[in-house]
Amino acid sequence: MAQDKRQVEAITSRDVDFAQWYTDVCKKAELIDYSSIKGMFVYRPYGYAIWENIQSQMDAMFKETGAENVMMPMLLPESLLQKEKDHVEGFAPECAWVTFGGSEKLEERYAIRPTSETIFCEHFKNVIHSHRDLPKLYNQWCSVIRWEKTSRPFLRHREFLWQEGHTMHATEEEARAETMQMLEVYAKFFEDVLAMPVIRGRKTDKEKFNGAEETYTVECMMHDGKALQSGTSHYFGDGFAKAFDITFAGKDNKPHNPHQTSWGSSTRMIGGIIMTHGDDNGLVLPPRVAPTQVIVIPVAQHKEGVLDAAGALRDRLKAVGVRAKMDDSDNSPGWKFAEYEMKGVPLRIEIGPKDIEKGQCVIARRDTGEKVFVALAELEETVKRLLDEVHDNMYAMALANREKNTFEISTVAEAKETLSARSGFLKSKWCGELACELAMKEQVGVSSRCMPLQQSGTEGVCPVCGKKCTTDIYWAVAY
Amino acid sequence: MAQDKRQVEAITSRDVDFAQWYTDVCKKAELIDYSSIKGMFVYRPYGYAIWENIQSQMDAMFKETGAENVMMPMLLPESLLQKEKDHVEGFAPECAWVTFGGSEKLEERYAIRPTSETIFCEHFKNVIHSHRDLPKLYNQWCSVIRWEKTSRPFLRHREFLWQEGHTMHATEEEARAETMQMLEVYAKFFEDVLAMPVIRGRKTDKEKFNGAEETYTVECMMHDGKALQSGTSHYFGDGFAKAFDITFAGKDNKPHNPHQTSWGSSTRMIGGIIMTHGDDNGLVLPPRVAPTQVIVIPVAQHKEGVLDAAGALRDRLKAVGVRAKMDDSDNSPGWKFAEYEMKGVPLRIEIGPKDIEKGQCVIARRDTGEKVFVALAELEETVKRLLDEVHDNMYAMALANREKNTFEISTVAEAKETLSARSGFLKSKWCGELACELAMKEQVGVSSRCMPLQQSGTEGVCPVCGKKCTTDIYWAVAY
Repeated sequence: MAQDKRQVEAITSRDVDFAQWYTDVCKKAELIDYSSIKGMFVYRPYGYAIWENIQSQMDAMFKETGAENVMMPMLLPESLLQKEKDHVEGFAPECAWVTFGGSEKLEERYAIRPTSETIFCEHFKNVIHSHRDLPKLYNQWCSVIRWEKTSRPFLRHREFLWQEGHTMHATEEEARAETMQMLEVYAKFFEDVLAMPVIRGRKTDKEKFNGAEETYTVECMMHDGKALQSGTSHYFGDGFAKAFDITFAGKDNKPHNPHQTSWGSSTRMIGGIIMTHGDDNGLVLPPRVAPTQVIVIPVAQHKEGVLDAAGALRDRLKAVGVRAKMDDSDNSPGWKFAEYEMKGVPLRIEIGPKDIEKGQCVIARRDTGEKVFVALAELEETVKRLLDEVHDNMYAMALANREKNTFEISTVAEAKETLSARSGFLKSKWCGELACELAMKEQVGVSSRCMPLQQSGTEGVCPVCGKKCTTDIYWAVAY
Repeated sequence: MAQDKRQVEAITSRDVDFAQWYTDVCKKAELIDYSSIKGMFVYRPYGYAIWENIQSQMDAMFKETGAENVMMPMLLPESLLQKEKDHVEGFAPECAWVTFGGSEKLEERYAIRPTSETIFCEHFKNVIHSHRDLPKLYNQWCSVIRWEKTSRPFLRHREFLWQEGHTMHATEEEARAETMQMLEVYAKFFEDVLAMPVIRGRKTDKEKFNGAEETYTVECMMHDGKALQSGTSHYFGDGFAKAFDITFAGKDNKPHNPHQTSWGSSTRMIGGIIMTHGDDNGLVLPPRVAPTQVIVIPVAQHKEGVLDAAGALRDRLKAVGVRAKMDDSDNSPGWKFAEYEMKGVPLRIEIGPKDIEKGQCVIARRDTGEKVFVALAELEETVKRLLDEVHDNMYAMALANREKNTFEISTVAEAKETLSARSGFLKSKWCGELACELAMKEQVGVSSRCMPLQQSGTEGVCPVCGKKCTTDIYWAVAY
């Protein structure tokens, strides 16, 4: 980490300019670098390590549901993409097209996958013949390309990393259960691993995935009151199966089309982590995905015994599965404190000659700044407890932010007035009409986020048309 | 696994038609499926699970050397690729070219990465300024595209999965040490994890990587006597650094160009596993990468207590970290035996009513077919020991095959005669002249594989020109 004259540079204040603060954190915490292609980013070691920790834990949750990993080709013939009408209309305009293989012009253009429903269906047709071949529960970790006009680190890339689950089932009931199960996996992952509270809900027809019958989502509120759609789970019915002529012999010995789902989440999650938890000193990482959970900093490290003692602490923590590192570079302790704050390391341990004498060390929390003296004998136990406490506190703070910035409204005027003062989620009733959804966008500037799974069941009025209705819905400005 | 009327179909005999046997195994062991694009394959769950096991163990070995994972964009602007002359000449003819982003024609063509030296260099230029920024030890796991004319599962894909390490060092000495260190990581991985003996060596100038100063390789012999280049490690000098204008301030405060390496291995390894260890009953998987290490098959499973006993065995094995599964489908035991032989599962456990009575089970080895009765109390210990024994035996058999099929020759006539009877490695001296290397190809049909690191130092003659020389070299027909 040491560099000749490097300073830990100050970043823009979060409350002064949230967008600039975000970009500063992405760069100064060394998560990302720009490349010579607009909208295509380099994931640097620290940023990619967060993704690896996300991957390994989420992958284990997928596998517990019976999902298996596969890898499909990254190129999709244009004719394949065109087999499902709604799907191609949604994706073709933002595909990157391969037209030459070596010096040879291709007979047909190939899209770099923007998503892989079509090529999964091509494969499903080859391997699904009988009801005994079902369900197929597949997932892949890969990158996709969507040729967007604007870009922003982690939030909108032309190429981003993600996982996409694709499953086939004998019955609608089973496919619907899978859709909801995977939504719950995402929700649990956000809450238990990323310390991000979510609203589980269903998308309106306008906002659902191209080609899906229903799209479910987990929506998170960022510190600035805007929404981030963080994971989606789709129920497709048998539309793709029909378009791709996938049939299986049922127990009744008759041919049937299987029912399909897909579900995805991406490196947007890292953007979500930054914008949910970060503060004016930089990144604040949830302990369960932090590449370094504990940084050990020797104080007065030139004095005899300090480096050994600090190294011993690190080794003890590593031995019990804590991701611990020691920084024994020749930078000053003050520089190091600022550096690991910027990088969002959950716990910092300081140990110097006096601490060694007293058989203690100092542990500082990144989330609250709080410092405690800890007896060396209680190191492992204390660190593990503190990592859990940091997680719980980060979750609680994010939830409090969401609750503080969620406002019930029942008219357009109320909605406008609420958002004139600050950003946040609006909760209202909705009559179900597209026209009213569009009016909210046009008049208030918000899009529908979701109809929460937890519906109150009470009656109210649509804020646009004033019709009586019972459906609860969330609106917000979204990333 | 169960299917209505599925049979475990016979495969072509390995000694009758090795190529057909290979394709049969890839398909019938459900490793791979074809897609609608020639040369682009689907990695099915069983094939991909082998790759996941390779990845996780190799990645841990990389990280032990200090390497960090990153992810670079998959697209390379043509101008970037052109910055290093030898490199672009080698790769441009087999690039897939993106020419449209959405409906917009791009100003410059982008290649889907065939390898990533150039884009790593672009990034290195941004992050390397001082000697304190070195070394940079980066690796990425991704897929690459090379638009080859012919294709074959795992061995030659237009898109394949691989890892590519890219490192930058302050001195030539350090970079050379890295090159050799990573070669040794590959060698150890092949020997200790894949049970494949390797020859460590250096490539001739003709066979080295485009743009490299030196290429080192680990070469394996397949069961049919042909060679598979299985992992390569390159030393680049400072050629790319100069082409990309990457400099750092040294301890002397003067600007220097860093020295570079790269190293790669790919899903070819799975092809290597198949062709090294497989037999007429199908795949034989090295225990350390087998997705299922032990399959438990209940015999007379309808009888009381059998399924419980079999399930208990599986659970006991899983509890000690063995990848164990039970097949309680309604297929016959005979069908199951053949199925898991085809899939190369290292150990099969059978347990039926009589075994339960006697407090024992039967363990059958995939590599030798040997069956032993094992007391249930000794299950875990025995399984772990047997998995190691299977690994060691597979390695020994592969080594014996290589030794049996390696022939020392000192004339072209001898070389021809040797290979007229059978396929294998030829070992000879070489004068170092390209003309003689080309003559071996033309007259004997073999390419140089490598100059082994272990050189005998004795004097002999070049088989082509007859000149006295000391360099040992291997020749073979290669995949």
